[in-house]
Amino acid sequence: MNIQNIIKQHHLELLFQQGLFGIEKESQRVYADGSIVTTDHPKAFGNRSFHPYIQTDFAESQLELVTPPSKTLENAMRWLSAIHEVTLRTLPEDEYIFPFSMPAGLPPENQIKVAQLDNPEDVAYREHLVKSYGKYKQMVSGIHYNFQLEPAFVKALFEAQTEQKSAVDFQNDLYLKIAKNFLRYQWILLYFFSATPTVDKNYFRNGSPLKPNQYVRSLRSSQFGYVNDPEIKVSFESLQSYADSLEHWVNSGKLIAEKEFYSNVRLRGANKARDLVKTGIQYLEFRLFDLNPFAPYGMTLEDAKFIHYFILLMAWLDHTADQDDVELGKTRLAEVAWEDPLSSTTYSVEGELVLLEMQKMLEALQASDEIKTIVKEKFAQFANPRDTLCANVVVAIEKFAGYQKLGADIAKGNKKNASERFYALSAFDNMELSTQALMFDAIQKGLKVEILDERDQFLSLQYGDHIEYVKNGNMTSHDRYISPLIMENKVVTKKVLAKAGFNVPQSVEFTDIESAVKNFPLFENRAVVIKPKSTNFGLGITIFQYGVQNRDDFAKAVEIAFREDKEIMVEDYLVGTEYRFFVLGDQTLAVLLRVPANVVGDGVHSIKELVAMKNDHPLRGDGSRTPLKKIVLGDIEKLQLKEQGWTIDSIPPRDLIVQLRANSNISTGGDSIDMTDQMHESYKQIAVGISKAMGAAVCGVDLIIPDLTKPAEPHLQSWGVIEANFNPMMMMHIFPYAGQSRRVTLDVLKMLFPEMK
Amino acid sequence: MNIQNIIKQHHLELLFQQGLFGIEKESQRVYADGSIVTTDHPKAFGNRSFHPYIQTDFAESQLELVTPPSKTLENAMRWLSAIHEVTLRTLPEDEYIFPFSMPAGLPPENQIKVAQLDNPEDVAYREHLVKSYGKYKQMVSGIHYNFQLEPAFVKALFEAQTEQKSAVDFQNDLYLKIAKNFLRYQWILLYFFSATPTVDKNYFRNGSPLKPNQYVRSLRSSQFGYVNDPEIKVSFESLQSYADSLEHWVNSGKLIAEKEFYSNVRLRGANKARDLVKTGIQYLEFRLFDLNPFAPYGMTLEDAKFIHYFILLMAWLDHTADQDDVELGKTRLAEVAWEDPLSSTTYSVEGELVLLEMQKMLEALQASDEIKTIVKEKFAQFANPRDTLCANVVVAIEKFAGYQKLGADIAKGNKKNASERFYALSAFDNMELSTQALMFDAIQKGLKVEILDERDQFLSLQYGDHIEYVKNGNMTSHDRYISPLIMENKVVTKKVLAKAGFNVPQSVEFTDIESAVKNFPLFENRAVVIKPKSTNFGLGITIFQYGVQNRDDFAKAVEIAFREDKEIMVEDYLVGTEYRFFVLGDQTLAVLLRVPANVVGDGVHSIKELVAMKNDHPLRGDGSRTPLKKIVLGDIEKLQLKEQGWTIDSIPPRDLIVQLRANSNISTGGDSIDMTDQMHESYKQIAVGISKAMGAAVCGVDLIIPDLTKPAEPHLQSWGVIEANFNPMMMMHIFPYAGQSRRVTLDVLKMLFPEMK
Repeated sequence: MNIQNIIKQHHLELLFQQGLFGIEKESQRVYADGSIVTTDHPKAFGNRSFHPYIQTDFAESQLELVTPPSKTLENAMRWLSAIHEVTLRTLPEDEYIFPFSMPAGLPPENQIKVAQLDNPEDVAYREHLVKSYGKYKQMVSGIHYNFQLEPAFVKALFEAQTEQKSAVDFQNDLYLKIAKNFLRYQWILLYFFSATPTVDKNYFRNGSPLKPNQYVRSLRSSQFGYVNDPEIKVSFESLQSYADSLEHWVNSGKLIAEKEFYSNVRLRGANKARDLVKTGIQYLEFRLFDLNPFAPYGMTLEDAKFIHYFILLMAWLDHTADQDDVELGKTRLAEVAWEDPLSSTTYSVEGELVLLEMQKMLEALQASDEIKTIVKEKFAQFANPRDTLCANVVVAIEKFAGYQKLGADIAKGNKKNASERFYALSAFDNMELSTQALMFDAIQKGLKVEILDERDQFLSLQYGDHIEYVKNGNMTSHDRYISPLIMENKVVTKKVLAKAGFNVPQSVEFTDIESAVKNFPLFENRAVVIKPKSTNFGLGITIFQYGVQNRDDFAKAVEIAFREDKEIMVEDYLVGTEYRFFVLGDQTLAVLLRVPANVVGDGVHSIKELVAMKNDHPLRGDGSRTPLKKIVLGDIEKLQLKEQGWTIDSIPPRDLIVQLRANSNISTGGDSIDMTDQMHESYKQIAVGISKAMGAAVCGVDLIIPDLTKPAEPHLQSWGVIEANFNPMMMMHIFPYAGQSRRVTLDVLKMLFPEMK
Repeated sequence: MNIQNIIKQHHLELLFQQGLFGIEKESQRVYADGSIVTTDHPKAFGNRSFHPYIQTDFAESQLELVTPPSKTLENAMRWLSAIHEVTLRTLPEDEYIFPFSMPAGLPPENQIKVAQLDNPEDVAYREHLVKSYGKYKQMVSGIHYNFQLEPAFVKALFEAQTEQKSAVDFQNDLYLKIAKNFLRYQWILLYFFSATPTVDKNYFRNGSPLKPNQYVRSLRSSQFGYVNDPEIKVSFESLQSYADSLEHWVNSGKLIAEKEFYSNVRLRGANKARDLVKTGIQYLEFRLFDLNPFAPYGMTLEDAKFIHYFILLMAWLDHTADQDDVELGKTRLAEVAWEDPLSSTTYSVEGELVLLEMQKMLEALQASDEIKTIVKEKFAQFANPRDTLCANVVVAIEKFAGYQKLGADIAKGNKKNASERFYALSAFDNMELSTQALMFDAIQKGLKVEILDERDQFLSLQYGDHIEYVKNGNMTSHDRYISPLIMENKVVTKKVLAKAGFNVPQSVEFTDIESAVKNFPLFENRAVVIKPKSTNFGLGITIFQYGVQNRDDFAKAVEIAFREDKEIMVEDYLVGTEYRFFVLGDQTLAVLLRVPANVVGDGVHSIKELVAMKNDHPLRGDGSRTPLKKIVLGDIEKLQLKEQGWTIDSIPPRDLIVQLRANSNISTGGDSIDMTDQMHESYKQIAVGISKAMGAAVCGVDLIIPDLTKPAEPHLQSWGVIEANFNPMMMMHIFPYAGQSRRVTLDVLKMLFPEMK
């Protein structure tokens, strides 16, 4: 089979470049000085027995972060970013993620705790590793790169050739070809991406093999790294011989299990090599890669793309390495690993030849300019070894007088960056903040998250076989469909709430002055507000806070309202402050007070300056990508100031609150203040009752309350409900301007998955 | 207290004219000849122990139709109309509703069955009535008119006066004033509205008191009607004396219960007169009225309005009748009842004086021209007794040689009219047909229906304390909120259904020719349809029904599609017929085939004529007020004909189906054909599964199936789901063009109220 010809003839160029990607990244939790922590894996990450994203590898301190399989590397990297942000923000304050593959500041072996997994077999396996390799070697971390060819490509290729009759055998042959060629040429990737030039002396049981000031390209890929005994040789000639030889080593006791075979390529698709013969190899796992300490998540997107095309090249090449070639490749890898990272490699000619083939392939595939540029840059590194990652790492280590110090510095910077916009998931910043917050919690606790529609904020969450769909962070299967329909219709909302016995302000609409005035007796002595139906900056509104006593006053108010609109409303006026109750099921989880945009005087700064200072608050921004909005000094604010006798240059006295807006919306710079603990319990119960009357599982209820400390009474003077919202904002409760944060998204998850512990 | 002054001074004119109205209308079920049926109350009306609308009065044959309390008489009449339509369409084919108060064709007494109520006390009471009055007298029917003054009016009146300190006493006095004045002047209403000039001879136990050819105004209100023994006198002087005297008659055994006191005014608000002293009279029930045989529901809206203002007048008058006046009024009533309906009444002067007062009141209240005109017309009837209702009834009876024959004729006409648009409720025709159908079923079975928002199709349904809200006929609390959100988003729908393992046609979108053609290998050998994203009359669509084999063919199809839109789709093509499955809970209740607009040739008529004939079908109309739409011969239809070589004047041969449309929508004249029984069970189960995967309680699922008789198989060649609809049309299942009707609205009610039997 000439794969290149088939791709060309059958126009499979695009399909060939598609596939599925997954990244697993190990790394050590460390203290501020870069030394490995002795603490347990944080409980906040939930249960490791099912966590799809945040696991431990060998040791309790060794995180393994896993992305879901993704159709593009861009997406895999987005997930890696999100999982990192969740992890970094969840770690104890004094813990960080070490950016180097080689551990630093290793504690005495007996202080290293093997990962405390539920499954005793998993623990026994680790105990075996301790005996065979010692704990230190197991603390080395790296990145595993998983790749699956697009199945439609494999199918098309199979159908286009004639030699192989079995589709499964064909697929196995194809993946084996990639594996073997990869093992033959893997040294090239090592040359570009290695980043473990040194390690602490105490890492070695029998003294360091490194001369003083010696650096190598990759300790991790050298005989001192995370490798099997050299006598363990496994055949890649065929899947049959692969299974035979692997089983031989396990049976002979040299390997405790097949998974102890640390090949830089693993054939994936079944737990046992033998089963692959039938099921077929489904994808390959490449385990060669050191952590790139300069990439916040251990590998850059560009490098990941290079690796992708390098893997494709392994399939594209005319020849297939045989077992001797594989062994030759492993030898070269060890040699290159021990080279001086600042010098040329012995095998640069071979490397350049392979990359020339790669460039030819890119031309044939009409690949993107982006990947062509990446390959060109790598090509140049054969001539300029000081441009390789490892050379740069060495320079940085020298500068920081040691990789532990450098690593600690990078680790702190990474954590700081990941926490800057602590309310968001950077990689999913095109989605709503509340959905980001829910995803944060789901990733932290280990629910499988799938984005069904990014623009539509539609998620699928999964725990075991249990799937739940969530839209906009809180619209779920727990709400009854009739609820939003009721809440969308204000007339129906009022009727339903009144039917259920809640205090609802009544309103009557009029389309002419005469009939409004005729109905005065309906409102006599009642506290009412008379307003045009479509209110516009408060024009035409009259409030009779203490009851409208007089017919003439009423008539005048009606007339004023009719100047602004063809239809007016006379509505019960509620005296008091508006609070937002966030109800979930049987509980009011949070109560919020929204205060109009304001600044507090200090007797020194002008209003303009005070606004600028207030706008510096980390929660304030454009309001869509931040929980709060910056105050704008626009016309409305200036008018508001003018009415109070101020200009933006006035210097208000100390502690005076200067109101900049009449409305309390967060979207116009208002403050959100948590009042959950201050609110009398009786109102919280009323809010729950209102939510239930609507059949809602999650509901935002707006109550007007004159005195939040007094128990509720059954009349409009004590409280009144003005609105119920079926898609309540959650961010303002999670990240209020003042008062305690209420992590309501986590409660949404607990409601959806009560079985999750 | 001078009520007139207070109303004027406090501008209570509008409030005075407001109130709450309720109509109870008795009538006999009869056969086509007008004789009373001997059948049981139809089981289809559900359980009389709670039915709020359709009850039985004394006898099993005697319907009592009850409207809910309504704020306007217009609304009360709408309900009366709806309840009548439901009743008439539910009655057995050979049963009708007799339009006269006096029964005709009375069967022997022993064949009259007393109403079979669940409560033994109710049955015992009726047995007592049989003994005291005989069965025939109890078969007399009438209308009870319930009226409550606007409570805000009563409150305003109370607050404006100073004499009475107790609000309850004040309210009782006011209602007692109305009651007494009404009893004093009730003969006037009798003069206008009486309609029982005669009755069959056998109605009388001791021979008819009527001379041959004698007619009277109201047998029903005469001593031969439905009245107590004349010795039963009850005092209306005060609520106290009313309770005293009523209890006296009950204790003496002359009345079996207070309710046996057949006053033309009943004080309502408590079960016992004694309790009214504390609770206060809440409303009045006026029982004077004969059925108007010419009004389809026993009373016209105009007459109901006149009665309303007559009642208001009883409050408005300066004087309050005393007990002597009340007795005088009762005597006059009996006298006028026995007058010749074609002659003047003895008391026309008094009548004219009272109506003059009424006209003055209307002026003072600035009442509508409408009511002024009504009163004017009635006024004239004192001078023209032949214009009274009763005189007209007599003329009609003479014409038809008897009221039984006349009544039978009217009854048949009423039933025919009520059944003409059998799929609608005329009074609620501004609502969607599906909501009308649901209301029909709810009224029939006795769920309390409240319209929360007419334009928004929002209903509240109640059974006991159990309230359910319904929008658009099938959007309920049983659906999960996430369901419509999933179904609204086609991308998410596909993902959810694919995740759940259903056959979903996949589609890929492209924005340029090049990338579409590059992806050809994805579609090679698959049955696909290539189409512009926004399809327009099928332009630019290419279907590869047997798989796209050839890259060039694919490229050409892509190019054609791009001529019509900037974005194209390549979608799995499903071979087969589209069926709509109506799923409710665990069941597919109906399966429908929608056929494009068509006519079947007869070898005689032209296509134009065939269309006109088909459009005569009772289900066809404008499509919004009818279940099916008339076929229009527009440009698209003519083009469709042209392609087949026809014009609208062509005469197609016998049995040839001429297709007039390519699309099968009902809205463009398509036919709906029930296929529920023909469809293989396996597809019905698939539809249920799809609905469940969406979390829907009620769902319309569109499946493409090549052979509905073969069991479903798990691949797209056997079936595929193309859409799920969360607000599926119900009318097309209830009233299909062909095939069996499936009354799915009733299943919706059963789902909401499983406790209802």
